[in-house]
Amino acid sequence: MKKFTKTLIKNSLRRIFLYRACLNRLKMMGMEKVFSYTLAMEAGVSPDQVRKDFSEFNIKGNKRGGYNIDELLEKMENIFYKNREHNIVLVGMGNLGLALSKYSRFLQRNMNIVATFDIDPFKQKARTEIPVYGMDRLKEIIQRFKVKVAIIAVPEISAQQVCDDLVKAGVKGIVNFAPVLLKTPPNVIVNNVNLCDELESVIYYVHHQLKIEGLKNIELLYGDMK
Amino acid sequence: MKKFTKTLIKNSLRRIFLYRACLNRLKMMGMEKVFSYTLAMEAGVSPDQVRKDFSEFNIKGNKRGGYNIDELLEKMENIFYKNREHNIVLVGMGNLGLALSKYSRFLQRNMNIVATFDIDPFKQKARTEIPVYGMDRLKEIIQRFKVKVAIIAVPEISAQQVCDDLVKAGVKGIVNFAPVLLKTPPNVIVNNVNLCDELESVIYYVHHQLKIEGLKNIELLYGDMK
Repeated sequence: MKKFTKTLIKNSLRRIFLYRACLNRLKMMGMEKVFSYTLAMEAGVSPDQVRKDFSEFNIKGNKRGGYNIDELLEKMENIFYKNREHNIVLVGMGNLGLALSKYSRFLQRNMNIVATFDIDPFKQKARTEIPVYGMDRLKEIIQRFKVKVAIIAVPEISAQQVCDDLVKAGVKGIVNFAPVLLKTPPNVIVNNVNLCDELESVIYYVHHQLKIEGLKNIELLYGDMK
Repeated sequence: MKKFTKTLIKNSLRRIFLYRACLNRLKMMGMEKVFSYTLAMEAGVSPDQVRKDFSEFNIKGNKRGGYNIDELLEKMENIFYKNREHNIVLVGMGNLGLALSKYSRFLQRNMNIVATFDIDPFKQKARTEIPVYGMDRLKEIIQRFKVKVAIIAVPEISAQQVCDDLVKAGVKGIVNFAPVLLKTPPNVIVNNVNLCDELESVIYYVHHQLKIEGLKNIELLYGDMK
């Protein structure tokens, strides 16, 4: 039951991010006010859904005259910035881990990767902006920097072990890039980012769409014969 | 209205991926059969939702005796592998693009990045496994390899232009890593992967959880005083 609720919140949170992106675009286009109807159209959901999500996250606005975009954006920032834990660790300095450690937007959004970890001693010696430690220092560093959130970018086979070590060291939330479902205690949150799934879902839609368009073309060709 | 439907499908597809990951784990644990109830628990949804999603994607099984895990997995593979377009292009060979171009799992899952593109002539000259072309060759290569799916890993500021160029060249589906919502014709599908949002949502949950635990501790401390 607990898990069920967690998933439900996840979708509404996903939509809040989507609304924020839509609002940023509308703002860039010079708009100052927005109706839930417009935002719903932009985000591809129903206006009721927008209002429901807003109320879940305690975002209020003047519904009759529309919402003020700047105010909405500020309220959303408050949801995510307030009490933000700034310090993050990253485990696994392969190609993806290295790219994530250099991802400048994290820092721009106040998410600070304070340390990275890898089992490879060669990587530990490399001159990088963020230090690369061996796994034996995981607990010490996590506790020193009061880290609550970690990124896992290790191969599938070692992901669960790394996850267990992180949880033991006090981590409460994980963004997991390894293509495997991790087992964690109920009070630890895991967000799986599966790059293959993201690509596969687009491929699925494209074929779906091409099939529909193919059928439409056939209808156009043979429509008169009906 | 069209967009609304698209979003709905997206969530069910997301869940199909989740079920697949759960089934793979259950299989690894030695299980052969699974009830929709068990799968629902694993995936954190209701059993009704599992059955509804299965029926949407035409996945049938013997409900009374449970589903055969291998058969379920095979049926899911059929959804994604059948008519799969193998050829993909990637635009933007910065840190993230480079890591994605080297991501070996794409190839393992039959998704083949045939070419990458970057405006930087220095990157075009680099010795890489996958060729790096200038943007002027985008249309030619996309048409030569009959590419329908592309990955965008360019900075926010150039993402829309790159998107327009891809669509003009015949691309029908895009995985977009730039933190911006792209405008596309209705028959082009965009899947946004926003790395900051993924991390921010975990941070949000962790603080939410810590707050709940904090409240619980206070209740434990002062519970007797009520």
